[in-house]
Amino acid sequence: MSIKIKSPGTVANLVCGFDILGLALDKPYDIMEFELIDTPGVVIENRDDFNLPTDPENNVAGVVLLAALEKAGINKGIKVVIEKHIKPGSGLGSSAASAAGAAVGANKLLGNIFSRDELVQLAMIGEKLATGVKHADNITPCILGGITLIRSIHPLDIVPLASPDLYVTVVHPQIEVRTSDARQILRKQVYLKDAIKQWGNIAGLVAGFMSNDKDLIGRSMEDVIIEPVRSILIPAFDEVKQKCKEAGALGGGISGSGPSIFMLSDAEATAQKVGEIMKSVYDGLGIENYVYVTTINKNGVEEIA
Amino acid sequence: MSIKIKSPGTVANLVCGFDILGLALDKPYDIMEFELIDTPGVVIENRDDFNLPTDPENNVAGVVLLAALEKAGINKGIKVVIEKHIKPGSGLGSSAASAAGAAVGANKLLGNIFSRDELVQLAMIGEKLATGVKHADNITPCILGGITLIRSIHPLDIVPLASPDLYVTVVHPQIEVRTSDARQILRKQVYLKDAIKQWGNIAGLVAGFMSNDKDLIGRSMEDVIIEPVRSILIPAFDEVKQKCKEAGALGGGISGSGPSIFMLSDAEATAQKVGEIMKSVYDGLGIENYVYVTTINKNGVEEIA
Repeated sequence: MSIKIKSPGTVANLVCGFDILGLALDKPYDIMEFELIDTPGVVIENRDDFNLPTDPENNVAGVVLLAALEKAGINKGIKVVIEKHIKPGSGLGSSAASAAGAAVGANKLLGNIFSRDELVQLAMIGEKLATGVKHADNITPCILGGITLIRSIHPLDIVPLASPDLYVTVVHPQIEVRTSDARQILRKQVYLKDAIKQWGNIAGLVAGFMSNDKDLIGRSMEDVIIEPVRSILIPAFDEVKQKCKEAGALGGGISGSGPSIFMLSDAEATAQKVGEIMKSVYDGLGIENYVYVTTINKNGVEEIA
Repeated sequence: MSIKIKSPGTVANLVCGFDILGLALDKPYDIMEFELIDTPGVVIENRDDFNLPTDPENNVAGVVLLAALEKAGINKGIKVVIEKHIKPGSGLGSSAASAAGAAVGANKLLGNIFSRDELVQLAMIGEKLATGVKHADNITPCILGGITLIRSIHPLDIVPLASPDLYVTVVHPQIEVRTSDARQILRKQVYLKDAIKQWGNIAGLVAGFMSNDKDLIGRSMEDVIIEPVRSILIPAFDEVKQKCKEAGALGGGISGSGPSIFMLSDAEATAQKVGEIMKSVYDGLGIENYVYVTTINKNGVEEIA
């Protein structure tokens, strides 16, 4: 028996919701095919050009599959074929897609033995390998789809929020921003007055998503704490953001720790126009770039034929 | 022509939503009666024992009425009779009730000439007199009813959230905590990791209110930034909170800057029991106290016969 799934890219943080909010994208996504094998252990085959490790102990999907097998306590192995389309280092949840896809794939192979929270916990083992931190803001929307809140990591408290009909435009300028670097440049302390602004915006954003108030969503996508520091690592960030908003995007910002930038729009035509603007800015700078015009994925990791 | 209104007490902050969240109470409330008079200026008559100033320049309702008259640009005056039941210094929005009541009362007398946001702006003039700060987290629920979010003060962005059917128990231990003192003991900077916990809780609380998820509301009412500092000013705070939660309250904490403590419950019997616990703790300490068992007010300031 084999199971084939697609595992979506994700946008973490959603501007003001650092470490707590994320959404799933309909594009790009990885394809993973799993098979139960008699030899204990994990066998990985990569069908892409990213040269990711095939040693399971050093592969994001691998460590998750090993943990799932151990947790299940069965004397079998899993073979996985990975066809990755979400570029590693893009800020679009590439490692989360591998980790979450592996957790869900293993679960399906093993007869749906894990709960939702167990799947997230398993997938976090992969994120730990990739980024050094057990975070869940990409994994959770990847598994569940839609927009999700991690209210708390210890104990894990996941809150699915909504799946509004919004268009998402993403540009991935091909420069390197390492998640660990993006995390290190953040200040350890913040002004209380800035924190208050931030949580006002987070409250507004959550209320906007839940009531489908697109104007409120737009007004609330403001980040006075993380973006001013991290955006320095992304060429032309301010220009892209300003031009996209002038073109009618509701708002947006850095996707995860970057370098990708995302923008939400309430109409497809706007989202397309925003994509053209993004492309022209980075083409103008001679920076290779990839643009995705897509929608919010409502299903998360799912089986495909 | 005279207009009689009741202006409700309010609970600001709602534990994790410092400076941005608030709710209106069905009890206690002030009664205010307004009359247009030919002599320009404001005449104040207090029908209670709080000895509040009757000089309009030094009275919370007075400064709001003066501002409303000036903004309206008419050559008349307003007489107001105030019957205050919300004790000044209780942390239950006593000054906000005077300020918001005055703004709404004046507006009704003058033919509903002010917008919602203008009413809040007018009432903030009263809060400035009372506390030194133009804040709106009591005023807004007082005017609108329900649970409200102040996403931003500059520019003013008010978001009505919900009016869930929850019971509110409040205890006002008769000790003095000055809002300005309660504000001064706060640290100017906070750890980013604490701010992240706080905004996870705020996001959870907003989602809980909007989806009527009482368990989520309870889990989210946690404050790692303000409560640990301010609760020191309130005798037996930890004991009250713990016993109330053990008795089934969803959660709660300091009302505004204190000294009142509020608890939310999803059943009236629980709310009553919580009130008895509060009373017995403060009676045991020999601290005079007032307990209110009430519901969330859905209408805000409203005209009465």
